[in-house]
Amino acid sequence: MQGENRPGPLVGIVMGSDSDLPVVKGAAEALSLLQIPFEIRIISAHRSPAQALEYARTAAERGLKVLIAAAGGAAHLPGLLAALTPLPVIGIPVAAGTLGGLDALLSIVQMPRGIPVATVAVNGAFNAGILAAQIIGAGDPEVQKRVAAYKERLAAEVGEKDARLQSSGIEGYDKR
Amino acid sequence: MQGENRPGPLVGIVMGSDSDLPVVKGAAEALSLLQIPFEIRIISAHRSPAQALEYARTAAERGLKVLIAAAGGAAHLPGLLAALTPLPVIGIPVAAGTLGGLDALLSIVQMPRGIPVATVAVNGAFNAGILAAQIIGAGDPEVQKRVAAYKERLAAEVGEKDARLQSSGIEGYDKR
Amino acid sequence: MQGENRPGPLVGIVMGSDSDLPVVKGAAEALSLLQIPFEIRIISAHRSPAQALEYARTAAERGLKVLIAAAGGAAHLPGLLAALTPLPVIGIPVAAGTLGGLDALLSIVQMPRGIPVATVAVNGAFNAGILAAQIIGAGDPEVQKRVAAYKERLAAEVGEKDARLQSSGIEGYDKR
Amino acid sequence: MQGENRPGPLVGIVMGSDSDLPVVKGAAEALSLLQIPFEIRIISAHRSPAQALEYARTAAERGLKVLIAAAGGAAHLPGLLAALTPLPVIGIPVAAGTLGGLDALLSIVQMPRGIPVATVAVNGAFNAGILAAQIIGAGDPEVQKRVAAYKERLAAEVGEKDARLQSSGIEGYDKR
Amino acid sequence: MQGENRPGPLVGIVMGSDSDLPVVKGAAEALSLLQIPFEIRIISAHRSPAQALEYARTAAERGLKVLIAAAGGAAHLPGLLAALTPLPVIGIPVAAGTLGGLDALLSIVQMPRGIPVATVAVNGAFNAGILAAQIIGAGDPEVQKRVAAYKERLAAEVGEKDARLQSSGIEGYDKR
Amino acid sequence: MQGENRPGPLVGIVMGSDSDLPVVKGAAEALSLLQIPFEIRIISAHRSPAQALEYARTAAERGLKVLIAAAGGAAHLPGLLAALTPLPVIGIPVAAGTLGGLDALLSIVQMPRGIPVATVAVNGAFNAGILAAQIIGAGDPEVQKRVAAYKERLAAEVGEKDARLQSSGIEGYDKR
Amino acid sequence: MQGENRPGPLVGIVMGSDSDLPVVKGAAEALSLLQIPFEIRIISAHRSPAQALEYARTAAERGLKVLIAAAGGAAHLPGLLAALTPLPVIGIPVAAGTLGGLDALLSIVQMPRGIPVATVAVNGAFNAGILAAQIIGAGDPEVQKRVAAYKERLAAEVGEKDARLQSSGIEGYDKR
Amino acid sequence: MQGENRPGPLVGIVMGSDSDLPVVKGAAEALSLLQIPFEIRIISAHRSPAQALEYARTAAERGLKVLIAAAGGAAHLPGLLAALTPLPVIGIPVAAGTLGGLDALLSIVQMPRGIPVATVAVNGAFNAGILAAQIIGAGDPEVQKRVAAYKERLAAEVGEKDARLQSSGIEGYDKR
Repeated sequence: MQGENRPGPLVGIVMGSDSDLPVVKGAAEALSLLQIPFEIRIISAHRSPAQALEYARTAAERGLKVLIAAAGGAAHLPGLLAALTPLPVIGIPVAAGTLGGLDALLSIVQMPRGIPVATVAVNGAFNAGILAAQIIGAGDPEVQKRVAAYKERLAAEVGEKDARLQSSGIEGYDKR
Repeated sequence: MQGENRPGPLVGIVMGSDSDLPVVKGAAEALSLLQIPFEIRIISAHRSPAQALEYARTAAERGLKVLIAAAGGAAHLPGLLAALTPLPVIGIPVAAGTLGGLDALLSIVQMPRGIPVATVAVNGAFNAGILAAQIIGAGDPEVQKRVAAYKERLAAEVGEKDARLQSSGIEGYDKR
Repeated sequence: MQGENRPGPLVGIVMGSDSDLPVVKGAAEALSLLQIPFEIRIISAHRSPAQALEYARTAAERGLKVLIAAAGGAAHLPGLLAALTPLPVIGIPVAAGTLGGLDALLSIVQMPRGIPVATVAVNGAFNAGILAAQIIGAGDPEVQKRVAAYKERLAAEVGEKDARLQSSGIEGYDKR
Repeated sequence: MQGENRPGPLVGIVMGSDSDLPVVKGAAEALSLLQIPFEIRIISAHRSPAQALEYARTAAERGLKVLIAAAGGAAHLPGLLAALTPLPVIGIPVAAGTLGGLDALLSIVQMPRGIPVATVAVNGAFNAGILAAQIIGAGDPEVQKRVAAYKERLAAEVGEKDARLQSSGIEGYDKR
Repeated sequence: MQGENRPGPLVGIVMGSDSDLPVVKGAAEALSLLQIPFEIRIISAHRSPAQALEYARTAAERGLKVLIAAAGGAAHLPGLLAALTPLPVIGIPVAAGTLGGLDALLSIVQMPRGIPVATVAVNGAFNAGILAAQIIGAGDPEVQKRVAAYKERLAAEVGEKDARLQSSGIEGYDKR
Repeated sequence: MQGENRPGPLVGIVMGSDSDLPVVKGAAEALSLLQIPFEIRIISAHRSPAQALEYARTAAERGLKVLIAAAGGAAHLPGLLAALTPLPVIGIPVAAGTLGGLDALLSIVQMPRGIPVATVAVNGAFNAGILAAQIIGAGDPEVQKRVAAYKERLAAEVGEKDARLQSSGIEGYDKR
Repeated sequence: MQGENRPGPLVGIVMGSDSDLPVVKGAAEALSLLQIPFEIRIISAHRSPAQALEYARTAAERGLKVLIAAAGGAAHLPGLLAALTPLPVIGIPVAAGTLGGLDALLSIVQMPRGIPVATVAVNGAFNAGILAAQIIGAGDPEVQKRVAAYKERLAAEVGEKDARLQSSGIEGYDKR
Repeated sequence: MQGENRPGPLVGIVMGSDSDLPVVKGAAEALSLLQIPFEIRIISAHRSPAQALEYARTAAERGLKVLIAAAGGAAHLPGLLAALTPLPVIGIPVAAGTLGGLDALLSIVQMPRGIPVATVAVNGAFNAGILAAQIIGAGDPEVQKRVAAYKERLAAEVGEKDARLQSSGIEGYDKR
């Protein structure tokens, strides 16, 4: 994903299993939209812990600014990465299994004193990407401008939908 | 909180009610520990919405890099601020009332597409402060070093407790 | 929806996203049934907060008597409107995502002291419409009569179904 | 509670058990604050159902505009009243027993099609009173003005607390 | 369902809505299996409360020994009947809507002191029928014998399935 | 508890641990109130399973009509008894530990097809006793009359409390 | 499953109903993978309690080292077996019905003091098999080596998937 | 804890924080009761991850047969150890914070395919010790006998309590 003049990735997206990929894609989508270079990896806290440790320990020195980690069930990946890096770690609880993602949400958000994970909504991968951009934007005015512009586009889209509803009425409304 | 040569605050801590102050203190404690200047405000999404809007809209231009917002019950303050600023917003669900903070957790973390809130544990104000420092550290190597050093101290503290337990045995162990 | 002699809307129905429209329709259906004029809007607490504020602040002076707001997840729209208008606000928790609407229910109902939202069942849009009519009926005997008549029809319908079951037996019963 | 020239009650507050009284008081407090005359009764859906039916059936003709009903556990009182009156019924889930009021919340809010209950937060009696005033205000501009004024006082109170915090600092802050 | 020499019904099955019929059928199936005569009705606590009251008040004098009531959501029907009859009332929580029947379960089981409802599993209509037979069997040795024989058949069926599994192996097992 | 002319017990109350006794007492209280003779035992499904089996298998032949079983946590006692007797078994979920009794409630109520347990509210021992009396009353008109009279007393008590509230007002009300 | 020279089964897998077989298969799959001989039975705690008791009481003397029991709803089978054998018992909560397996999880894991059940994830039958092998491996170095080798294969598989993702990119990734 | 001829520890008990010690003691108590030598350590998955890894990786070669790990909140310690050792790992969910231990329970039990944790009840440390003994007993008949004898004592204790209740009656019963 890097070329000669391409900037190295600023965000590392990690998922515990390739079954999380359909959800995790949303993070990549958001980062692409805001032009933040990223890398994406499959590394498991439980099945390949040595890789997870290595990844977390070297993340900062490789130039990453933020980590995004997605996991379902007993979702330990975000917390394990957070234990091993000074970078901010964003956690995406993935709804896998039969409990609607409540297990993953609590496993990610309820971190002990000293080791936070910045948790987003269940399956909220797109928002994890936006949040990563906001974090980078905190130190980079250019990125912050892109975030602000994105939010303005959101408002415009809602306004456009409202206008269509006013003209079409409820029954005639065509979603998209 | 600003003097002539004192740096302006980088983090804005906002709570919806002064009843949240005993919890929210933890965020101030963590930021002080990591030497991040901050301001702290009481502003309610529901009772003083005009102030909340004003605060969010001007936060970036006043030099803030991160917002931290704490609220209990139908905890809308973090989300409302996030709607109105390009800055990253950290949400602290406060356990108020009878549902153990599950209401505040879901009200904060389950934000819609486009407007994330970086959620920490129920009553996890100290971690909100650490996370804010990590976010600032993503763009400021000096702060990142402080975060890394803090994490090393955590490990050392655990090791010291373990050593005490080995010498005292279970019954003789004196918690601090 | 207004003509020269048509009465202006008494109820404003607002939804945060057009994906809520299939649920929200029920409110319009109930209001039509009870002949209460209404308007329906797409306005987001998070994506178009300025519009939401404007809408709430002008609602009373435009002649609206009740607001109905529907939202899913971290469902802040009803509470945000309630913060900005003296009108009663009815909240419809929409089951979006993987938690069965429990997130939206708690985000809407657990409002802080001073700013209530009149919450109905998850996806209970039809009942939101009935409740709006009851509220208007509290000050308008003609509307209250329509509500009372509607409740009598409900009883009759149940009685008719019971009679059919008695004559058809369990296996022969034809639902509708 | 009625004198010769005193207006009759506009709101009927009903609780299922006198053990709910410490919670329910909040509704009376709010109505007094907004100068809405009310009556308050102990009537149980399960232990004195005949009284509950009688109360609901005659409420409208006795001049009541809104009913407020509080109950804990399998909290059927608000729904039973709602079944028997065209008036809007506000339900207060009371946290009794060991489940934090989640039982009462779901028992009150999840009403079937056609028979809504306007549900407020667990133990949210004060807000039930405010909501009743808002409902009456929908048909009475004088009451609506009082509600609007009350909301302005709320904002002022928050502002005053914020100002005190700014001058006292966190440690010196004196809550009330 | 009564003929000249046919015994009158001993069990009254009541459901709040015909949408509950596919679940409620199970109760009829169990009662038929154990040869307990029953009647089945559609009566709503909320939509036809007068009928519900009448039904409950006359149930004992009409010769019924047990009532079975099924409802979903804010499931008040079993509790309302229980308030008005000295007969034991069995409640079936029906999973309707998006909360998996937890709302109905809590609405039925958490009855206040003095007015119990004998609650069975979510959608457990068949077991409601078995329980009704056990209750009748407490006063009728012939019925109790049928219940005991039924339980022996259950054990035999499990044993037969186990034997088939032992001979077929896991992959070859044919579920019925 | 039996004398020469004293009737043998009709209800067997069983608890899994003597720590449940403060809750279980309520069942004895209700049965005494309605003059139903009973016995009370400590027998554990997990710690003394042989005794549990023996107790259940001989219950009917010893003249018992109903069993009441109380347990907390993974509350298997009611279900185990139900597996081994044709008598109706009433289960009392006891709130032990940290989950508010939700564990015990689900462990008792969610019984499989064929083996119901008549579940009452968390800690609802008093109601278990009332339900046992209602079950005996289904086959014994004298007991049914006592149940009916008890319900009338309940209504009277509520009425008396309401009358006191009307004369004392909210602040002057003396709970008992 | 035993031949002359074939080793007898070391693990007994028991399920309460043949409807659990599609889930339970996973345990057999894991044990086969790690070459642990096992037997598999359908025995119900509630429908065939005598068989369950007999099975548990003779398990150790028949040479079994570990029991695995799967059940849904009020899942008493693992706990009942655990009450009657000194062997370690592994419980698999099966998601049956409408509560996502939360009922079975709590019914299995919340065992009282003295009688543990080693609980795995909802529907986690494969892991129950792995855990049984780990338990046998605690006393058999050969089996422990197989477990260690299995875990290394897991890490290798994750690494292989990650490598494929790096070469294919997100859109081109072919799951399996 | 080792002397010259004392056997080395067979069980390693690990807790994430010394605040867990009052709960974790129960595991030591059970192991002492069954004469299983053990060691006890404070090691945090998040604050001292390097120590956790080292501990898990060397546990088997140091002669340990079973690990017991206790943690609250986002309880990752048992899972992290399980990722790094072929030994069976028992997890104790500790109820810390405001969610009654549901967060810790789900974080421990919902482990992904391949890496089980043998989970016991919330705060069930005593049972974790018993389970560890059962696991060791699976390969050591002497230990299995001690477990069997322990279970017999449990039954005797329950019987003794029941006998006391029979002679004292409910009111006179003296709990220990």
